Amino acid sequence: MSTEWLDEIKWTDDGLVPAIAQDAETGKILMFAWMSRDSLKETIETKKAVYWSRSRQKIWRKGEASGHEQLVQDVYLDCDEDVVLLHIEQRGGIACHTGRQSCFYRKWQDGQWQSVEPVLKDPAEIYASSTKAE
Amino acid sequence: MSTEWLDEIKWTDDGLVPAIAQDAETGKILMFAWMSRDSLKETIETKKAVYWSRSRQKIWRKGEASGHEQLVQDVYLDCDEDVVLLHIEQRGGIACHTGRQSCFYRKWQDGQWQSVEPVLKDPAEIYASSTKAE
Repeated sequence: MSTEWLDEIKWTDDGLVPAIAQDAETGKILMFAWMSRDSLKETIETKKAVYWSRSRQKIWRKGEASGHEQLVQDVYLDCDEDVVLLHIEQRGGIACHTGRQSCFYRKWQDGQWQSVEPVLKDPAEIYASSTKAE
Repeated sequence: MSTEWLDEIKWTDDGLVPAIAQDAETGKILMFAWMSRDSLKETIETKKAVYWSRSRQKIWRKGEASGHEQLVQDVYLDCDEDVVLLHIEQRGGIACHTGRQSCFYRKWQDGQWQSVEPVLKDPAEIYASSTKAE
């Protein structure tokens, strides 16, 4: 596969690009993460979201530990060529490592960040059968 | 106003946080930009989106040049406290400096990024009456 489309992206000095994952059906923003050149290429090829974990400094195949894979329907690039947007189907309905649907579960209300989304599954249960962190 | 909620955010080394602007009604992702501590504080206080322009290294009141202000309905914080999400009403229906509704107007199709959104207004016209860049 030609990879000219990868060269059009303005990668950070660390070789990354921010990626927003949005539920393709409801439009809900589920998470924000970073992608390396290799992870975006694999995302396009496999149609499953693959990120770069900055904390672990390695490729992060979303769902490898939790089972909560993200099936990618479409990928968009912004006007500055430095952010990508994924339209995804979220396996298990849980994107966040806290067991919530979305990572953006805190809302600014009355001068503080207040949790407005329920925990759908206990993280201990999500990661119980895995030795991998996510 | 107490600003403890600002201290909860994990700012980058440059003192910034990524911000995603989403249409509050349709759920469409309109743009991605960065905010400084002052710009997020002003956003909350004025209920209008205020960013930090990395290229110009200054506060950027969205719409100051284009008239395309973003009225902020809600602000969310993610699980890692390092990304904010704005639910906005986009004045003029145009968020992108190219004159399109959204900055994410290019879609990966057949091995390339293809423009899939129309230009709603000529940028020359948008910025004609202003001496400011945006």
